[in-house]
Amino acid sequence: MIPFELQQTDTATNARAGKFTTEHDTVETPVFMPVGTKGSVKAVSPEEVEASGSRIILGNTYHLYLKPGLKVMQNAGGLHPFMGWEHSILTDSGGFQVFSLAELNEITDEGVNFQSHIDGSYHHFDPAHSMHIQRVLGSDIMMAFDECPPYPSDKEYAEKAMQRTHRWAEECLEYLEVNPPLYGHKQYLFGIVQGSTYEDLRTISVDALTSLGFDGYAIGGVAVGEPKEKIRKITQFTAPILPENQPRYLMGVGKPEDIIESIAAGIDMFDCVIPTRNARNGQVYTWDGKITIRNATFTDDHSPIDEECECYTCRKYSRAYIRHLLNVNEIFGHRLATIHNLHFFLSLTQRARGAILNGGFVQWKSEFLERYQP
Amino acid sequence: MIPFELQQTDTATNARAGKFTTEHDTVETPVFMPVGTKGSVKAVSPEEVEASGSRIILGNTYHLYLKPGLKVMQNAGGLHPFMGWEHSILTDSGGFQVFSLAELNEITDEGVNFQSHIDGSYHHFDPAHSMHIQRVLGSDIMMAFDECPPYPSDKEYAEKAMQRTHRWAEECLEYLEVNPPLYGHKQYLFGIVQGSTYEDLRTISVDALTSLGFDGYAIGGVAVGEPKEKIRKITQFTAPILPENQPRYLMGVGKPEDIIESIAAGIDMFDCVIPTRNARNGQVYTWDGKITIRNATFTDDHSPIDEECECYTCRKYSRAYIRHLLNVNEIFGHRLATIHNLHFFLSLTQRARGAILNGGFVQWKSEFLERYQP
Repeated sequence: MIPFELQQTDTATNARAGKFTTEHDTVETPVFMPVGTKGSVKAVSPEEVEASGSRIILGNTYHLYLKPGLKVMQNAGGLHPFMGWEHSILTDSGGFQVFSLAELNEITDEGVNFQSHIDGSYHHFDPAHSMHIQRVLGSDIMMAFDECPPYPSDKEYAEKAMQRTHRWAEECLEYLEVNPPLYGHKQYLFGIVQGSTYEDLRTISVDALTSLGFDGYAIGGVAVGEPKEKIRKITQFTAPILPENQPRYLMGVGKPEDIIESIAAGIDMFDCVIPTRNARNGQVYTWDGKITIRNATFTDDHSPIDEECECYTCRKYSRAYIRHLLNVNEIFGHRLATIHNLHFFLSLTQRARGAILNGGFVQWKSEFLERYQP
Repeated sequence: MIPFELQQTDTATNARAGKFTTEHDTVETPVFMPVGTKGSVKAVSPEEVEASGSRIILGNTYHLYLKPGLKVMQNAGGLHPFMGWEHSILTDSGGFQVFSLAELNEITDEGVNFQSHIDGSYHHFDPAHSMHIQRVLGSDIMMAFDECPPYPSDKEYAEKAMQRTHRWAEECLEYLEVNPPLYGHKQYLFGIVQGSTYEDLRTISVDALTSLGFDGYAIGGVAVGEPKEKIRKITQFTAPILPENQPRYLMGVGKPEDIIESIAAGIDMFDCVIPTRNARNGQVYTWDGKITIRNATFTDDHSPIDEECECYTCRKYSRAYIRHLLNVNEIFGHRLATIHNLHFFLSLTQRARGAILNGGFVQWKSEFLERYQP
């Protein structure tokens, strides 16, 4: 079991403050995890990710398996040394990308056949293969291989995908039992709760996975196109029935207001490409809301993105400069905006954590939501 | 006059070691100056440029005049604070870009009418306007507005362009006499020797400009498409007839082997987009020669770009990782390759300087050229 300490539970909501420890670091929760899909958090260095407050990032199994491939990853000694990141890494199972990016050829109980979105080459993923890849990547937290049905899915299909996910989860555990880590540090495994938007299926999924026993639990099959209200509802239903003394991870969420609501529902971990992708598109975050820094209104604005912010970007550069760089397509602009957005998202979960610890979460949350204009 | 100390002259060649001082920094020569065309040395931060050993960079008057424009630059307090660079800046006159990038409409003795390469808008540059823009940019070293004829140019045209350059050079001096700097630090002015590939014209140009009196002298109208041998010949002819106790700058050069030969000819300052542009194209420099890091041969190569190199990239990342990043289009790869290439070019001029100072330049030069495969 991953060492997890529940430090404080909010009295008025289900919000929690805690921390878990991998062999690379201790991570305080609630936490936002930046996404480093292809072995790099886009546009920034490991040192800049670290300076944002991050101690855990994501790597994508599907992408890294295709490029640079397992031979290179293994000869590098895993993803940590390859990309120069000394803190924790969580890898997904590859399932979500197979279902969303690749050309799907076949899903059976034995696994998934698909064609690479890069070159059309044929590949097969199954629980054992996903675990093998994640052993080679050497992540601190691995995710069980699951089937993530699209939204909407009828109940029959959602149940079938869920049952398959449970069988695959068991196969992941079996694989790990006989195949130890490759690089001398422990790798933990999280199970993924499925069941689409059906509460009774979510209950069944939680029961099935907790019977098998994982280091932590993720809520999967959300943020796949369903209305925001559905995500909130299923999160609010599922989070509280997960084990209290283990980390809870809501996959692929999200916007600041969604993160805050999900923290209130009892979620500990988040990941999303929003801060990094928005940065490259010129959308940056302030405590008053999101602004489009490329707009002409910032042409001659020599103040920082956010006066309150203490990130490298805000300490040194103006809105006018960042707008100029993005406008003339200088990639240093991507970096400056990304540094700021990551700092904002990490500050967001850190502030929520502080408010939970000092008993003021409800008030902090309402003040945040009142001021912040999405 | 810009403070310039000639510290050592090589006995066997015309190579020199010296230093000049602006109000932002002291710069040791020979020196390579990275190019920051639009207010950013492409793909790297000011701190990373500084870590390469750079204490002076270039800014491009033409580009910064068009975007973000003079109002923004002046409200920012000039280019130094706008881009967060605390060391020295040299700006070109805008002339070269007008002749090479813009849609030229008319060249007269009164100046140049052109259309922006961005949006086709109409503009006029003349000596006074170029000086005004460079006052607004606040560079430490400004370049006189010149006419840079293409290669090849017949002698009649080359002479006409040269005479115009001399008249314009005088107008630049006149403008500066009555229009002081805007930001409280001194701005020096370099004259640009023209004359194409004609040695007698180069002699006339040196005489004319030195009679007017500038803080330093550049050899212009080279690296505009002529064969390498012609550049060398005109550099070897012109450098020694420039004033001994002032800095000499060879514009737009060049490759490592060209820089070394030009140092031997008596040049002190260089600028070129080669290290930054090549980096983004996946070409990186080692003391054994240039390598194309995107090649498949580096797929599983976990050594640094250059075992001897002490840059951030080589201390931390492998060829395999950098190749992977460039291959999957991650801009962090551009950064890592740029950091390395800048470090290499700065080390090159630093090593040449060290060899000149200790009297071993000829031997160092022949060892370098023997080992380095272009």
